[in-house]
Amino acid sequence: MRSPAANAELALLLEVAGTPKPGNVDRHRDLAGLRFEHFLAGAVGARPGLADAESGAPVGEAFERAVAGMSDQSGGNTQFGCLLLLTPLVRAAAERGLTPESVSNVVEHTTVADAAGFYRAFDHVDVAVPDLPDDAYALDVRRGSDAVPELESRGLTLSDVMAESAPADGNAVEWTSGFPRTFAAADHIESGDGLILDRAADAFLFLLADEPDSLVAGQHGPETAREVSERASELLDAPRADVAAFADDLVARGVNPGTTADITSAALFVALERGVSV
Amino acid sequence: MRSPAANAELALLLEVAGTPKPGNVDRHRDLAGLRFEHFLAGAVGARPGLADAESGAPVGEAFERAVAGMSDQSGGNTQFGCLLLLTPLVRAAAERGLTPESVSNVVEHTTVADAAGFYRAFDHVDVAVPDLPDDAYALDVRRGSDAVPELESRGLTLSDVMAESAPADGNAVEWTSGFPRTFAAADHIESGDGLILDRAADAFLFLLADEPDSLVAGQHGPETAREVSERASELLDAPRADVAAFADDLVARGVNPGTTADITSAALFVALERGVSV
Repeated sequence: MRSPAANAELALLLEVAGTPKPGNVDRHRDLAGLRFEHFLAGAVGARPGLADAESGAPVGEAFERAVAGMSDQSGGNTQFGCLLLLTPLVRAAAERGLTPESVSNVVEHTTVADAAGFYRAFDHVDVAVPDLPDDAYALDVRRGSDAVPELESRGLTLSDVMAESAPADGNAVEWTSGFPRTFAAADHIESGDGLILDRAADAFLFLLADEPDSLVAGQHGPETAREVSERASELLDAPRADVAAFADDLVARGVNPGTTADITSAALFVALERGVSV
Repeated sequence: MRSPAANAELALLLEVAGTPKPGNVDRHRDLAGLRFEHFLAGAVGARPGLADAESGAPVGEAFERAVAGMSDQSGGNTQFGCLLLLTPLVRAAAERGLTPESVSNVVEHTTVADAAGFYRAFDHVDVAVPDLPDDAYALDVRRGSDAVPELESRGLTLSDVMAESAPADGNAVEWTSGFPRTFAAADHIESGDGLILDRAADAFLFLLADEPDSLVAGQHGPETAREVSERASELLDAPRADVAAFADDLVARGVNPGTTADITSAALFVALERGVSV
């Protein structure tokens, strides 16, 4: 039986292999400079950090180690957001079984040191984040570890930091509300009956149709994010070839629903922990 | 920096993702009942056994654990032969640096207990092996752990068992001769200048052209193995589309050069350990 850390790594691999996953790297598509193999190496590199989360290391420290390992490839950021979701989920799975309550409990117990680990993770890799108003500079995540003294002086925990980032960041919303979309997509995967990689792609489309992607909103504006989500809704029961055409279109336009991919990986993890087989 | 166990897992993933890899599962091809996702899960599951090899566990024990973990998916045997090559290579890399001499040293020091671990690994998964003459029944690997008393009474080490299996089994030949094809293909990967997944596919074709595949010879006869190897030679400088057509042809014919894929994964591991980047 695979450990939670192994299931988390496998979730990362199934996520990137699921196809078509419109706008994202998948089994049959690369982005410019960010290719399939970078995600394979990112998943392998993240494993020791995920194992730390499993064995009870502080969430922020485990996350930072996972991100540092993930970054040991030349493509840049591959799975930062995935790991942000997976780290508390792995911890919850190892601690007391995986439920919205158990992962909320992990979130609630995060500390200022966990927040510092989260900020330090930004030292390892460039992450796409929206511009902030000038008065938010002190806690801009792009400052990485330079922002840690400010965090400490304000006494902000990682849960506080996530609450600050929600609702603009879909991953932060998951963190602060019991991972509702993660568990809903896991149900979707569990109740599906196709091949696991098809179910991964279906879960992605289900999530994209459900809500505009927050990374797309940050990079291309809310109007584009809404348009992409509406198109996904229209394609929910469409032939796979139509979804593939949409995937090619988004790649060509440089529209990358990355938050949706993050939540897909988290949902795959939950489904694997519940016994969905590969 | 990735550990030897992490590089070995990554080598398994790069091997299966390299495309076109005629007759094998690759990024764009599945076989009947044996699909890409089974190899992803196989690689993830093998990691603890590979980590054992890295930290000095007996080779046979580490191999058995890697195979047991690999088998935790529904496709059947995905990477048994790869792991047979990777286990001593990981051990050598962790012990004293990776050279033909260091891995030969690992092989020479294997024990009867290692041979027992190797046989026990067959309890976890069905492996395609050629039929043996009746008088070889006592040590038929398909007997798995049932053959262990016989091994013990004859005092056979894992190195002895491999010497017995060579030259019919290409992996056993690697084991007993300092992994010459593994290191040659690693040189080929290292000196290449394309994307790593293209270099993985090139290494596979290079190896297939170099020698008939022993799994193909066992399953379809030496004539087919020679024909496939000759066709690979003709395609060494051909456009990738021609290699892809050959790949589709072999999949359709059910011809699977699995030993060549095993050695490709071992070569990728050596190349990663030497610093080839992803």
